[in-house]
Amino acid sequence: MKLIETEAELRETLSQMGRKEKSVGLVPTMGCLHEGHLSLIRRAKQHNDIVVVSVFVNPAQFGPGEDFEKYPRNIEKDCELAESAGADIVFHPDAANIYAPDASTKVEVEGEITHKLCGVARPIHFKGVATVVSILFNIVQPDRAYFGQKDAQQAVVIKRMVRDLHIPVEIVVCPIVREADGLALSSRNRYLSGEERKEAVSLSRGLEAAVECFSTGAGSRNAFSLKKVITDEISKKQLAKIEYVEIVDAETLADTSFIEPDRPALAAVAVRFGNTRLIDNKILRDRG
Amino acid sequence: MKLIETEAELRETLSQMGRKEKSVGLVPTMGCLHEGHLSLIRRAKQHNDIVVVSVFVNPAQFGPGEDFEKYPRNIEKDCELAESAGADIVFHPDAANIYAPDASTKVEVEGEITHKLCGVARPIHFKGVATVVSILFNIVQPDRAYFGQKDAQQAVVIKRMVRDLHIPVEIVVCPIVREADGLALSSRNRYLSGEERKEAVSLSRGLEAAVECFSTGAGSRNAFSLKKVITDEISKKQLAKIEYVEIVDAETLADTSFIEPDRPALAAVAVRFGNTRLIDNKILRDRG
Repeated sequence: MKLIETEAELRETLSQMGRKEKSVGLVPTMGCLHEGHLSLIRRAKQHNDIVVVSVFVNPAQFGPGEDFEKYPRNIEKDCELAESAGADIVFHPDAANIYAPDASTKVEVEGEITHKLCGVARPIHFKGVATVVSILFNIVQPDRAYFGQKDAQQAVVIKRMVRDLHIPVEIVVCPIVREADGLALSSRNRYLSGEERKEAVSLSRGLEAAVECFSTGAGSRNAFSLKKVITDEISKKQLAKIEYVEIVDAETLADTSFIEPDRPALAAVAVRFGNTRLIDNKILRDRG
Repeated sequence: MKLIETEAELRETLSQMGRKEKSVGLVPTMGCLHEGHLSLIRRAKQHNDIVVVSVFVNPAQFGPGEDFEKYPRNIEKDCELAESAGADIVFHPDAANIYAPDASTKVEVEGEITHKLCGVARPIHFKGVATVVSILFNIVQPDRAYFGQKDAQQAVVIKRMVRDLHIPVEIVVCPIVREADGLALSSRNRYLSGEERKEAVSLSRGLEAAVECFSTGAGSRNAFSLKKVITDEISKKQLAKIEYVEIVDAETLADTSFIEPDRPALAAVAVRFGNTRLIDNKILRDRG
């Protein structure tokens, strides 16, 4: 496996690997790889000749006061893990290699889908994500790119961007990987204290309770009732501060007060433990 | 030569033409082709195996009250002309083929370079241009794309976008083609009355006077003097209403009061004759 740090070297290497006759899968990450990322890499390896894992902590998607500086970085460990999961190339550019000093071009998915849910607390986040993903797509020119369902809103935004801009990349969204007790894997879980870690299980428990209520209970298509089920579970925890609990259309992210029988639906939450912000979601009904 | 109206058919046709082993040149136009466009097509034909001319009057780059509805359209004539200049494909999509009803993704080059000069009177114009050019690049995936120096600001904006987003397309900017009396060719020239047409020559005359003043005259590096030379020439005309006369850095479009010896410089004007808005420019000093 090769560790590559510049765009020129990446293009040259892909060319030498005969990329014109091969399929390329891209797994964009911010590093600090865990089993969730590795599941994306394995899936990419199944369906592509060449797998590129990008490791880039993108400054443009962090707002002021967010954890850009302290975000965990460990490229040696990331390379080991990526290789073990089947990566052919880890692309680890410097920020100066991605953004010119006077770079001013942004890709923005406008409207509700980037301004609700995580967009409320993180108003510039999805603009930073859409821009850097566009850049990575232009550099790597993959046939397929892999994203985790953990960042459900990000996946919807990227799919919308790809559709709107006619980007010739297939977007593959892979299931959330969870700890034994249900906590969704996240690089930010390591910020949690022992007590916070215990309480953090309430996110997946609350979501699971909503799934059960939706699939079995009476009144289960009422979004208000489902949100209450989730909120009740999380609110029991002393250190948990709910940022949002929402039931939305899984494709458009439109609010829904009563889940339509023919639409995919998603329950999504964001909860703060101290300075640590966790998100999680479960699909209530999948797309047909 | 093939006339193609959908993205799917275009991708299929390019694939059948063996595009993987060939170079592709794209000439994006809004149709109503004139000798300026044809010079781009001929240039593209010299350097590429396959030349695609897109003909798409892009609604997203027209503001309210602009000439989107009356913009001249004649696809049969455009096909004849494009073929005569060497085009292999004319891509003429419907707006519905380019923009989904709920499309909301925009590509924007932020900052001064899109908000000055034509950006003052046309505040959404360059966002519409950057977005549609991104889309056309994603559909055609050309090796090179050709733009006219006539739209000098557009060329600078597209180059900036390509650099910032790492788009793997070489941008080639070709010289302005002029009528015998100096008027820059434009699809909008046909809007001019006989009297307006006569007076419109003042744009190129004013710019030419500035070029002479810059290259020979005393005080010629003073932007104020150069602007005055241009303004004096155009102001003589009764029907001409100056929108702007500017001397800017040809690469960054930064204002300059005194042209630096080591920077490329551009004189640019926009003038209205009734409802018709004409632009023109001349390079005072080229890059290196």
